[in-house]
Amino acid sequence: MTSLACSVVDRLSGWEPDEWPVRAYHRPTVSSLIECVPNFSEGRRPEVIDEIVHAIGQIDGVTVLDHSRDETHNRSVVTFAGPAESAVRAATAAVGRALQLIDMEQHTGAHPRIGAVDVMPFVPLGSTRIEECVDLARRFGEQAAKLFDLPVYLYGEAALRPERRRLADVRRGQYEGLKAEIGTNPDREPDYGPHRIHPRGGAIAVGARKPLIAFNVNLATEDVAVAKRIAHAVRESSGGLPAVQAMGVLLENPGERRYAQVSMNLVDWERTGISRAVREIRRLALEAGTDIDHCELIGLAPTGALLEVAADALGLRDFSPDQALELRLAKDR
Amino acid sequence: MTSLACSVVDRLSGWEPDEWPVRAYHRPTVSSLIECVPNFSEGRRPEVIDEIVHAIGQIDGVTVLDHSRDETHNRSVVTFAGPAESAVRAATAAVGRALQLIDMEQHTGAHPRIGAVDVMPFVPLGSTRIEECVDLARRFGEQAAKLFDLPVYLYGEAALRPERRRLADVRRGQYEGLKAEIGTNPDREPDYGPHRIHPRGGAIAVGARKPLIAFNVNLATEDVAVAKRIAHAVRESSGGLPAVQAMGVLLENPGERRYAQVSMNLVDWERTGISRAVREIRRLALEAGTDIDHCELIGLAPTGALLEVAADALGLRDFSPDQALELRLAKDR
Repeated sequence: MTSLACSVVDRLSGWEPDEWPVRAYHRPTVSSLIECVPNFSEGRRPEVIDEIVHAIGQIDGVTVLDHSRDETHNRSVVTFAGPAESAVRAATAAVGRALQLIDMEQHTGAHPRIGAVDVMPFVPLGSTRIEECVDLARRFGEQAAKLFDLPVYLYGEAALRPERRRLADVRRGQYEGLKAEIGTNPDREPDYGPHRIHPRGGAIAVGARKPLIAFNVNLATEDVAVAKRIAHAVRESSGGLPAVQAMGVLLENPGERRYAQVSMNLVDWERTGISRAVREIRRLALEAGTDIDHCELIGLAPTGALLEVAADALGLRDFSPDQALELRLAKDR
Repeated sequence: MTSLACSVVDRLSGWEPDEWPVRAYHRPTVSSLIECVPNFSEGRRPEVIDEIVHAIGQIDGVTVLDHSRDETHNRSVVTFAGPAESAVRAATAAVGRALQLIDMEQHTGAHPRIGAVDVMPFVPLGSTRIEECVDLARRFGEQAAKLFDLPVYLYGEAALRPERRRLADVRRGQYEGLKAEIGTNPDREPDYGPHRIHPRGGAIAVGARKPLIAFNVNLATEDVAVAKRIAHAVRESSGGLPAVQAMGVLLENPGERRYAQVSMNLVDWERTGISRAVREIRRLALEAGTDIDHCELIGLAPTGALLEVAADALGLRDFSPDQALELRLAKDR
């Protein structure tokens, strides 16, 4: 990391993504990877997101897992993964390209945002520890601030000020509010970088968080009030299960059956896993005179969280995720 | 594969494992790997197995996943995995080393066997197809026969004669019986290699099979008769579930509770998976007035078979194993 940080700073003046040196790294194992989920303030020009994704994907060792655009929010999310050094290089390339292509002075959209690259969370995969992501987020933040003359706010586990742990607090007032306050209000002083907004790119929130599982439980009822009551009972913020966010909604797709849905984010599956959350929802559904119809996993989930469900369902004794053949092999490769 | 086969044959005269050229291959993804599970007729001299494991492990791209020795059977099992080309190289190195270190004329043991390397099964992992393993087993068999002047019998999915699909049929009469019959009985003619036994190494059975899951269900009873009845009901050979082998045993460990156990091999989990087998055993256990206490997975299992259990337990709709993050990443690496 140190050598990369130096080489990045050395190249400060003439940085161009296409010049980025691509060299072969010792390939680390899958279990030592970092995931990054940057959000960009552009959801209406697909060619811009394609260029950013291209800049990320050309970094050796990085796999782009997903990207999606939202026109209403005028915002896009890219998910990529790689070893620490590659992840930082790809994150840097992404910011560089976004600052060239996105102008916050022209941006409008429904979603709160403070910059062209609004958030850059680092997420531990496999046996990577969250502490490594905290370290990485801070080093990346410091480096990006210098390289791009961009104000950087650290959030989540990487926050240096406790009042910046919640992203909503960092984004208060959005781009426009931050622009007005950054040079004068000491509460808005960035953790790294200049005490003024970047002329096109605004600012960036850089953080570390655990992987998030988006999981929906569809009830055998159309009564959304039941889903809302269950969501209220299971979410941490109203005294439910730790590390669970939940809301009750009515799932309506044309031509399909309607379901009252408990839509969850499990933000730390080692505290509350899928099985525990679903078991609690089933108990509450039965109490309400209904049951679970089926479940949906949205996007990706850590393999360990799914293996835990299998071990729980079977009452497996002495099970280790290392007994999953391809996962075990991936560890060594 | 063709170039490897040629280079092996070219080196026929002066082959030594230490001379084996180690070069870097393009690293294939985890999902295109082959597993090999050779059984060696040596279980009493650990140093011999260590040397064989060393010969396998030094092949670039190969991971030795497990090895175990059995003194009673005087037999050892090594599990390794790698891309096709590396797997064949490691299998070849293993046979070469075993023929130097094991003399069948001196071998006694409880387990049926025909040679120093008794069996060499090739097993598909991830998205590898069984057909690739059939092809690989036949190429390896032909090459090993030439290189080591060793009679080769193809079994399992790789069998060229239907009566050789079952390993027990190939091993009929064992080393001693085969030695007496090989030159005279046309039924014992090898698929490749000389029509006489190798002076030290006997013969080898080379095959292709699907991955096998060793799975035990421990009942909440000590009555082994219940386990035997359930095993009889679920195993394919007595009209039960397809691709299930099962027996009932009494599990006794000093100082621990005793369990009547249904011990299974699931030989094709895509035909009968873990959930289906366990569900049927639970139904039969409840009928017999008992229940499942807990389960045990022995050794490794394909990750897909465990994810299927999770998806089944949750009633997941539209689930794909590609949603398991590390597994998805391993595919691309």
